[in-house]
Amino acid sequence: MLVVMRQDARPGDVQAVIEAIEAMGYEARPMPGRQRTTVGLVGNDGRVDGTRLAALGGVQELIHVTHPYKLVSREWKPEPTVVRLPGGLTIGAGEVQVIAGPCSVEGEGQILQAAHAVKDAGATLLRAGAFKPRSSPYSFQGLGVAGLTLLALARRETGLLIVTEAVDPEGVDAVAEVADIIQIGARNMQNYSLLRRAGRAGKPVLLKRGIAATIQELLLAAEYLLAEGNPDVILCERGIRSYDTQTRNLLDLSAIPTVHALSHLPIIADPSHGTGRRAMVPSMARAAIAAGADGLLVEVHPHPDQALSDGAQSLDTGQFEQMMHELRAIADAIGRRIAEPVGARA
Amino acid sequence: MLVVMRQDARPGDVQAVIEAIEAMGYEARPMPGRQRTTVGLVGNDGRVDGTRLAALGGVQELIHVTHPYKLVSREWKPEPTVVRLPGGLTIGAGEVQVIAGPCSVEGEGQILQAAHAVKDAGATLLRAGAFKPRSSPYSFQGLGVAGLTLLALARRETGLLIVTEAVDPEGVDAVAEVADIIQIGARNMQNYSLLRRAGRAGKPVLLKRGIAATIQELLLAAEYLLAEGNPDVILCERGIRSYDTQTRNLLDLSAIPTVHALSHLPIIADPSHGTGRRAMVPSMARAAIAAGADGLLVEVHPHPDQALSDGAQSLDTGQFEQMMHELRAIADAIGRRIAEPVGARA
Amino acid sequence: MLVVMRQDARPGDVQAVIEAIEAMGYEARPMPGRQRTTVGLVGNDGRVDGTRLAALGGVQELIHVTHPYKLVSREWKPEPTVVRLPGGLTIGAGEVQVIAGPCSVEGEGQILQAAHAVKDAGATLLRAGAFKPRSSPYSFQGLGVAGLTLLALARRETGLLIVTEAVDPEGVDAVAEVADIIQIGARNMQNYSLLRRAGRAGKPVLLKRGIAATIQELLLAAEYLLAEGNPDVILCERGIRSYDTQTRNLLDLSAIPTVHALSHLPIIADPSHGTGRRAMVPSMARAAIAAGADGLLVEVHPHPDQALSDGAQSLDTGQFEQMMHELRAIADAIGRRIAEPVGARA
Amino acid sequence: MLVVMRQDARPGDVQAVIEAIEAMGYEARPMPGRQRTTVGLVGNDGRVDGTRLAALGGVQELIHVTHPYKLVSREWKPEPTVVRLPGGLTIGAGEVQVIAGPCSVEGEGQILQAAHAVKDAGATLLRAGAFKPRSSPYSFQGLGVAGLTLLALARRETGLLIVTEAVDPEGVDAVAEVADIIQIGARNMQNYSLLRRAGRAGKPVLLKRGIAATIQELLLAAEYLLAEGNPDVILCERGIRSYDTQTRNLLDLSAIPTVHALSHLPIIADPSHGTGRRAMVPSMARAAIAAGADGLLVEVHPHPDQALSDGAQSLDTGQFEQMMHELRAIADAIGRRIAEPVGARA
Repeated sequence: MLVVMRQDARPGDVQAVIEAIEAMGYEARPMPGRQRTTVGLVGNDGRVDGTRLAALGGVQELIHVTHPYKLVSREWKPEPTVVRLPGGLTIGAGEVQVIAGPCSVEGEGQILQAAHAVKDAGATLLRAGAFKPRSSPYSFQGLGVAGLTLLALARRETGLLIVTEAVDPEGVDAVAEVADIIQIGARNMQNYSLLRRAGRAGKPVLLKRGIAATIQELLLAAEYLLAEGNPDVILCERGIRSYDTQTRNLLDLSAIPTVHALSHLPIIADPSHGTGRRAMVPSMARAAIAAGADGLLVEVHPHPDQALSDGAQSLDTGQFEQMMHELRAIADAIGRRIAEPVGARA
Repeated sequence: MLVVMRQDARPGDVQAVIEAIEAMGYEARPMPGRQRTTVGLVGNDGRVDGTRLAALGGVQELIHVTHPYKLVSREWKPEPTVVRLPGGLTIGAGEVQVIAGPCSVEGEGQILQAAHAVKDAGATLLRAGAFKPRSSPYSFQGLGVAGLTLLALARRETGLLIVTEAVDPEGVDAVAEVADIIQIGARNMQNYSLLRRAGRAGKPVLLKRGIAATIQELLLAAEYLLAEGNPDVILCERGIRSYDTQTRNLLDLSAIPTVHALSHLPIIADPSHGTGRRAMVPSMARAAIAAGADGLLVEVHPHPDQALSDGAQSLDTGQFEQMMHELRAIADAIGRRIAEPVGARA
Repeated sequence: MLVVMRQDARPGDVQAVIEAIEAMGYEARPMPGRQRTTVGLVGNDGRVDGTRLAALGGVQELIHVTHPYKLVSREWKPEPTVVRLPGGLTIGAGEVQVIAGPCSVEGEGQILQAAHAVKDAGATLLRAGAFKPRSSPYSFQGLGVAGLTLLALARRETGLLIVTEAVDPEGVDAVAEVADIIQIGARNMQNYSLLRRAGRAGKPVLLKRGIAATIQELLLAAEYLLAEGNPDVILCERGIRSYDTQTRNLLDLSAIPTVHALSHLPIIADPSHGTGRRAMVPSMARAAIAAGADGLLVEVHPHPDQALSDGAQSLDTGQFEQMMHELRAIADAIGRRIAEPVGARA
Repeated sequence: MLVVMRQDARPGDVQAVIEAIEAMGYEARPMPGRQRTTVGLVGNDGRVDGTRLAALGGVQELIHVTHPYKLVSREWKPEPTVVRLPGGLTIGAGEVQVIAGPCSVEGEGQILQAAHAVKDAGATLLRAGAFKPRSSPYSFQGLGVAGLTLLALARRETGLLIVTEAVDPEGVDAVAEVADIIQIGARNMQNYSLLRRAGRAGKPVLLKRGIAATIQELLLAAEYLLAEGNPDVILCERGIRSYDTQTRNLLDLSAIPTVHALSHLPIIADPSHGTGRRAMVPSMARAAIAAGADGLLVEVHPHPDQALSDGAQSLDTGQFEQMMHELRAIADAIGRRIAEPVGARA
């Protein structure tokens, strides 16, 4: 950490900074420049909280040279994290997982039809929400526990693994009983009580980037999960807020190489929420794979025009099947492979 | 709601939209234009979920003419909401409340010293966090229940009312026992489980705008509180995400007249988080009052350079006192009045 | 265009809107709803300026159903524009052009070395700036006319076509003499005097998206060029402003399918400015091709560590060659082909 | 400037950075930390271009401690710049100038009526556009030279000083003949050919912030003007791009204290473009004065419903008069004074 002093800072101000750094147990290294003095804090292991220094007299700003996270950092663990799932599937090891399904579980017929369809097209995990966080209290909020039961049924019927969202600490255990991966949604990326509980649930966690989160904030949220002892975290880029209303969100594909550079954790992309427009999902899915994504999260609904949520961004099963063909070609081109469902396409 | 058809939509597509609207129980009114047809949905009371329409063939986009919220809307309740607090204080009725205090409760000495200082300068409510949501798991997370106890003590000692944050549904009841106003923080603006519980806690709620929330999303979050039966909601503009790093956040003062136009709820401003820089707090506080804010939330710490969080944006007590003088003059200029502590300045 | 009236608008307000629409020569179609009346303006060919309507009493907002552009719109010209260049190269017809070169022309040795290197690796056009718009008046501003002369030399020596930027109306003719494609930079996207002059210069124009331009604004800027009689316009996504400082800009790859849906014009991507980081250029270049980009603009410098501008985002020639291999595989996977230099790779 | 090395940088990488700094004529000061080495560049006078350093091997990032501008910086000139106008008016010295008028000059009757009205209400300068940069080529583009003639007439008739925009280098001289202040619009903030010409025109320049410009970019654009020898520059905050569509732009009032802290130049605010909504102009104008703005730019039209541009954000003369009363009270409250027209209110 570097403490940049104001041009008009007095020697006593610099001295006070030095003493404060030493009182925190670190070494201070002042560096006088032509215009101003900078004081380096040496020995930071990524966990220094500079609050006190910023408030000292004559301090202009703090510059963080060390990242504020540690467990998620590639500097501390260079080799990539590989999340191992039941049935031998992996995320982060080279094979690309396609997670697909409707936004919400709406009923037995719908979820089974969707599950079979996405499995036939080559998805390996089924994603559907039983608990749905919605901007309006008047929108459909999901089937709740009954939805979890239907997801368990879909798992038994198809062999697909299950990804589903937990929305509050109380609900984590019920979700963890059914889910192979617990999803934390974008709105809850900084819901720390939820993160802590999910970090102790004994299942891999899929953590979606908040709608205006920086990559550093996303990594710090993941740090909460790892700090609870859960190493199996998968990040997800799902579109961020933009000033242009052409798309629902702005899919930031540069998040993929950025996360791969800063962290050992795998990262997947959600082109459905990332664009909000069905017609753009295939091109953005291809782009995500080409950029090195470790997987995809895609909304597929057997009848998008009857969906209770997010119909406008859901592919129908024919569109999904067509897209999967394209994705296999892109994965081949970069030396990766789209994973296949257990027992599928034999 | 208007359903805009694509230029190449077929008559059958338009007919399908009409039928879907009617199946939802509303009236459809097609309006053919020179380039494309638009179909109006008549009878919307603000709670139509257009998901199914957006997914129909030939539909280009949905345009929402009716606001998606109802209880918070000024169209449904033209007169302003006045939140009545113990001791006869009000928010929304003309007098301006200044809520002040340190970011966190750090100990008995610190909180009592801060409470007396802000009271002496003219604040009517004390705000300090016992539970602190922090981006990093390694930052100070607050004293928890012990912090609530100290806030209760500060209330008894000074007569100041208490504002403090609840961060998860389980914690709401404990907070509600001590707080005169329950704060919901920016990171939790769309934490719906927390909103629902806070809406039933029997205390006014201060709802901070999410870091990239639109005004409509802020009002929809408030709608969750009102839908639980709690009419006493105070909104708070606290700065949004910006591309410029000169300030920690970008204080959006236009939120004040926007909220006053769309809703009957009061809105206050937080220039401390809104700028992140102590030197900018007084000018932005004056601007907020001039823009019509119903109150302010200001960080004040007896010794900012020893603060465990947010020291760089905290005023010391002398600066706060000076600012209060300026604010009284601004309030006078627009025909309002800064409220005074009970028994104060006599 | 739809004129949405306020809930409390009086019948006379609605009548005034109807009369104003008719006075503008269009047909008005009022549509009373349960909460408010909407008045449709029928007959809009995309060029209605609604200013006067927005200012009328009782009007809440205008909603634009028709796009404000015409000549660039795919609705008016469904088949894609193919820009034909000397030597039989095309942009927009399926083959993908890779435009490469250093940020600036720095001298004869540098530009010839760069030209030969990018040609050997498979680029078909050379891009380098003779006139450089720079944020600081103290940064290197380009060699000016001398730089144009060196570009002409590079063209003769290598057969590569030339792309270079014009920065003001007076400079367009000199640039047009040397350039096969005139570049308009991001800072000048709404420099209308420059656009008009470039639209009459008789050469194709590469129009870069402004740093915070919406897709609609980009298309409107292109409309200026087409309105001057120049159909040969190539759009370029080069990254937009973001709140995250991990990258210099945020490359918005969703612009590619969005432009392809709204317009017949080709669009290319610039992953060098789009990220500002050399290490991210190959993955974002691959992603752009996978998303359907009609070409790429890539900064390549024989010695990035000696570059006078943008060294941190320039590939060296070995990195560029490696990337070209990857791009050919991605193009194959989606049934396209990276164009090859005339006489190259025979 | 600080050069932060990667954790895995080799000693030779650090040495190469040191040599490059010395080759640029500065002193290098390496500072090894526990995780990585940082190399300080000492002697930077604000004009170092770090391009070459960023491209060196093992370099992670550059951190700019010194501001990249000089002439506009308060560190180089602590006392505020006071722009002196004909008739003894000043900007930056304490009195607050209100610049008002219609968006465009539309004709003799309109501009004279507007000029008399704003003068009667207390404005000291008339602003109206003769040359209008418009997003669409089909929108009204201004009366051009004929508009300048009408502005000269309005000046003679009312004594108001004139502010009007130059949109290209060729047009600067004609504008400078009539204008007391030359306006550079937001779209042209980084049109450097225009800035250089305006910097030599011998008249004060009003420089509007670009729609997504950082404060640093605004100050660098002003640096172009000062570097041409023109010290009389007035900055203008006019709203920036936001993700929320409630307002046309997001008026960033924190720009006022930020500019005052970093620069000696005066800054005014434009609440009309800054919000795009007439109803919000008075509250934002009051807030700007309370925040310390040195002036205001306000759109006023005698008949907003007949305006050829920006009618929705223009005040009518009655509304403007009312607002001026409020502004005088706010200015009084902070010890400033709204300037009065010469000979007015006597």
